[in-house]
Amino acid sequence: MTTATVENAVSPETLLASLRWRYATKKFDPERRIPAEQWDALQEALVSAPSSFGLQPWKFFVVEDPALRARLKPASWDQSQIVDADKLVVFAVRKDFGAEDVERFVARTAEVRNVPAESLEPYKQMMLGFAKNLAPAARQAWAARQVYIALGVFLTAAAALGVDACPMEGIDQAKYDEILGLSGKGYSTLFVAAAGSRAADDKYATLAKVRYRREQVLETL
Amino acid sequence: MTTATVENAVSPETLLASLRWRYATKKFDPERRIPAEQWDALQEALVSAPSSFGLQPWKFFVVEDPALRARLKPASWDQSQIVDADKLVVFAVRKDFGAEDVERFVARTAEVRNVPAESLEPYKQMMLGFAKNLAPAARQAWAARQVYIALGVFLTAAAALGVDACPMEGIDQAKYDEILGLSGKGYSTLFVAAAGSRAADDKYATLAKVRYRREQVLETL
Repeated sequence: MTTATVENAVSPETLLASLRWRYATKKFDPERRIPAEQWDALQEALVSAPSSFGLQPWKFFVVEDPALRARLKPASWDQSQIVDADKLVVFAVRKDFGAEDVERFVARTAEVRNVPAESLEPYKQMMLGFAKNLAPAARQAWAARQVYIALGVFLTAAAALGVDACPMEGIDQAKYDEILGLSGKGYSTLFVAAAGSRAADDKYATLAKVRYRREQVLETL
Repeated sequence: MTTATVENAVSPETLLASLRWRYATKKFDPERRIPAEQWDALQEALVSAPSSFGLQPWKFFVVEDPALRARLKPASWDQSQIVDADKLVVFAVRKDFGAEDVERFVARTAEVRNVPAESLEPYKQMMLGFAKNLAPAARQAWAARQVYIALGVFLTAAAALGVDACPMEGIDQAKYDEILGLSGKGYSTLFVAAAGSRAADDKYATLAKVRYRREQVLETL
């Protein structure tokens, strides 16, 4: 495991330049590919994304098949990013997150940390209690929110790496589930993110980013 | 506005080192401060966080007052991060997000892009339609999800800058609203993130990060 030190931290200027550079890319260059190392790092960013208790109530489906992409496009208001971007990631939430998901996570914890599962019993009971105390709808809402953390990680990581991306909530989630066969897998679609390179003529690339002034959205108490 | 080019992108190795280095810091060093430039960049990362339509249905409250911090601690399962971390950010969602929020955003868009408000009318109607088509509970759920994107951005940006952080969902949100007087401001607390520097003896810093294997959470179709 690598330990980052202050020496390999990114400078504030570099980070801010990346964040200013990013925008929701409307038109991708269909000929340009994300370099393999950058794409590998982006996938790793998804895998390592934080979540409540570390429970990772999600799955990421990378749609490579052009035929599937073509079928997803009409389920996405016909937006061209679905077929033109080098990569398309479907962010899906675990359905009916429950005790067996907690068990699976605890087993994984024992495996990664090389400790006996019994030593994690109090931790497991705490998480089981948490899950049990939430009504099904609230539990599903909780799980879905976690997936949005992963989106924030993905978009920030992409910007840092110089990869263009476009998050898209406006899709027909049920159609996605059907086309990708997700229901049988225990997951359901929330939203997607396309990633690749902006087309040279994407007029949205040069529009000023619209954000509230700092004092409008950030208050010190 | 700075334009990032491929030359100032972060390398995959640097990004991955940052993501491996980060963990949910349980014990902060109360003596260590985040350098001013890094903290400024982190605030800017929050301000520039992406959201659905760019609507930014959120507000970030940075609690500096030690007396307020002390009162928030018992509303946070008495976790020490609340008082020990250099910074404490309360992520709050806009309550009853609706037409006036859309109007405000459109006005800000006209201001930033220096275009007449009338030219944004179709865009405004589209967003108003979106908001109106959601039942109040669904609209609130939508708004809350956006705030989790900002959390993902914040945690990733902090890691890149070499700043330690700890997201915390396990807080008494109603108590937070009361202590910070948020209700009158039209926002409600969702969760917090503490930021600062890990204590030298935080035993969690050296525990292996528990994540599923890539093939368990990422599938190519």
